Amino acid sequence: MEPLLPNGFRIVGLHCGIKSESKKKDLALFYCDRPAVAAGVYTRNLVRAASIDWNRAITPSNHVRCVVLNSGNANACTGTTGKQDNFEMATIAAECFGGTAEQTLVLSTGVIGQRLPMEIVSKGIKQAYQELSVDPAAITDVNDAMITTDSTRKISFRKVVLDGSEYRLLALAKGAGMIGPNMATMLAVIMTDAPLSAQQADVMLRSACDRSFNNISVEGHTSTNDAVLLLSSGDSSGETLTEKDANRFTHELVDMSIELAKQIPADGEGATHLIQIRISGADSDSNADKIARTIANSALVKTAITGADPNWGRIVSAAGYAGVYFRVEEVTLHLNDVLLFKTGNPVAFDEHSLSQSMHNSKTIEINLIIGSGPGSATHWTSNLTHDYIRINADYHT
Amino acid sequence: MEPLLPNGFRIVGLHCGIKSESKKKDLALFYCDRPAVAAGVYTRNLVRAASIDWNRAITPSNHVRCVVLNSGNANACTGTTGKQDNFEMATIAAECFGGTAEQTLVLSTGVIGQRLPMEIVSKGIKQAYQELSVDPAAITDVNDAMITTDSTRKISFRKVVLDGSEYRLLALAKGAGMIGPNMATMLAVIMTDAPLSAQQADVMLRSACDRSFNNISVEGHTSTNDAVLLLSSGDSSGETLTEKDANRFTHELVDMSIELAKQIPADGEGATHLIQIRISGADSDSNADKIARTIANSALVKTAITGADPNWGRIVSAAGYAGVYFRVEEVTLHLNDVLLFKTGNPVAFDEHSLSQSMHNSKTIEINLIIGSGPGSATHWTSNLTHDYIRINADYHT
Repeated sequence: MEPLLPNGFRIVGLHCGIKSESKKKDLALFYCDRPAVAAGVYTRNLVRAASIDWNRAITPSNHVRCVVLNSGNANACTGTTGKQDNFEMATIAAECFGGTAEQTLVLSTGVIGQRLPMEIVSKGIKQAYQELSVDPAAITDVNDAMITTDSTRKISFRKVVLDGSEYRLLALAKGAGMIGPNMATMLAVIMTDAPLSAQQADVMLRSACDRSFNNISVEGHTSTNDAVLLLSSGDSSGETLTEKDANRFTHELVDMSIELAKQIPADGEGATHLIQIRISGADSDSNADKIARTIANSALVKTAITGADPNWGRIVSAAGYAGVYFRVEEVTLHLNDVLLFKTGNPVAFDEHSLSQSMHNSKTIEINLIIGSGPGSATHWTSNLTHDYIRINADYHT
Repeated sequence: MEPLLPNGFRIVGLHCGIKSESKKKDLALFYCDRPAVAAGVYTRNLVRAASIDWNRAITPSNHVRCVVLNSGNANACTGTTGKQDNFEMATIAAECFGGTAEQTLVLSTGVIGQRLPMEIVSKGIKQAYQELSVDPAAITDVNDAMITTDSTRKISFRKVVLDGSEYRLLALAKGAGMIGPNMATMLAVIMTDAPLSAQQADVMLRSACDRSFNNISVEGHTSTNDAVLLLSSGDSSGETLTEKDANRFTHELVDMSIELAKQIPADGEGATHLIQIRISGADSDSNADKIARTIANSALVKTAITGADPNWGRIVSAAGYAGVYFRVEEVTLHLNDVLLFKTGNPVAFDEHSLSQSMHNSKTIEINLIIGSGPGSATHWTSNLTHDYIRINADYHT
């Protein structure tokens, strides 16, 4: 199914000059012909980019018209000047469409601690507004303007029929490393023409993020700029989805968000495998989540997978320091469906064959049963490779 | 000052065959001619080696005679069989010196999830007992029998004069990666002939570990086998240190433990720099500690230092997700004494010169002031390099 822009939106992605490489796109606009509903979920880092504080103050909203996105500069740790620059970005966009700054959301990603080149950015926004388009080709342009160290585009599209009407859901994301010069941060913009109220959008987006974007990691470094936005152009009539339709819509949104979120660690800096970590049998979902994150953040687990080494002791021992109580005697581990550890005891297995299976699997599946409780969680992360070190250590900023 | 064995102790380190390489030492005994006081601080991992559970049940004690240490096999995640094997190690040693198993502590380090070759180990312990020695050369033999992926020996020695009597403090440690096959775990044994009660030894050791071994990391993966032991041969008279002397002794013990502990991340797997992270101005020491650990565990901070890249945004943003509240407007950062971020704003600096300084410094100093509170903490960690990946991913177990 070819991605199509939901009704009511026009978008554009172009190169304005924030990134030094001459052809690399670095500015995008998402524009709605009418006041749109907008909800956002943002980084929990205390050290937040100017754009994040700006968006948090505005969303949820039912009269957003525009999202200005730039890559190549995060506008984070830039103090008062950074806040002014962010306000200027929103103001310039608002002047283009004849509205107010508060109708414009801002997303930034890239190097921390440097001022935005405001002359270039200002010119870029004005040019972008002139080039807004409904052409499907603009979708890839916009994704290209979002990405930094990403090696793949991250686009998901769905059609959903609710009560006889067909609606579109289009989501664009970027992310490969969490943060840092010429890379950084997870951003996603989801557009739909389904008629949502601001409150519906807010609840739906939180629910989707909790199942998807909040359960992924590359190296576990929370960014200053993470943001996921949900924009709906369909609210102009005043009618919103019924509860039943909203539930169906949420189901699609969650499913699409998971599909999109997994693409981020799969394309993690230097990654050759996506690692899927399922924890079950915990006392609660939140305990399961803590264990999943601890395993996901273990450099020893991540490098064992790089080496196609079924070194299960690294996985079980990582669970042990997650800060969650469990009894080792109840723990059972499968790796790519092979049983390695059963109720606290090692199990003999064919190491060569499992190593081969790990080598050949794009997705490595870790399945850890921690007890007999009702809690479960799934987390997706990247493996840790020489290329991660090369990307983050060998080149200067 | 050449290390000397404290009075009352005899030690030995030899190759018995747990490690496959023919010359690598893999078994050590620490033996006291009289009942010794022994205290221990152990890993907080829920998934603990058999040796850790055994020692926890015995210490603090005032009648320990022997520590049996093996490298090459952690005897962790080995279920009931592992517990039996550990008990057998203690029993064999006890038969040698004519005492009980409960007078023997056990330390193991190495591969997880495999059974110890008990026939080899049993023969090794008996042979080792025959070769116990007070020769200073035995000190390096024992350290060699402790180490796994370590590239340097880790030995500290002090003399302390208390009330006219001279006492010796000798500490041996190992550690380079936290855990995993053919590597793993932090172990330290501190011997002294100063007369300590079991309670004194326990309090002193906890105090020393809180300032030293508990503040180091390589990749942040808590081991199943970590242990620090303090053994005192000086208690036979029944007299112990006065409070004043105990305070002076503790001061020496803390200082020596810090000196020894820092050697572990300095020799971290693949490490080329020791990173010293000082946090001050936090609301409490424990909040400062949380921030220090979060920075220490950031792969982006560790790789920036590998690249001699003064990428301070990675440091400030890591502090931001430590789960501790602070105001960015109060944060100030120095890197190798260069001011980079002052009360929430970036400061211009000579990037080339700082990069040179980072490249040339064996120890990189991060000094982060988080506010104006009384809380502070210091943590030492390793940088993250290609060699870390090589050691942990490229070779199979």
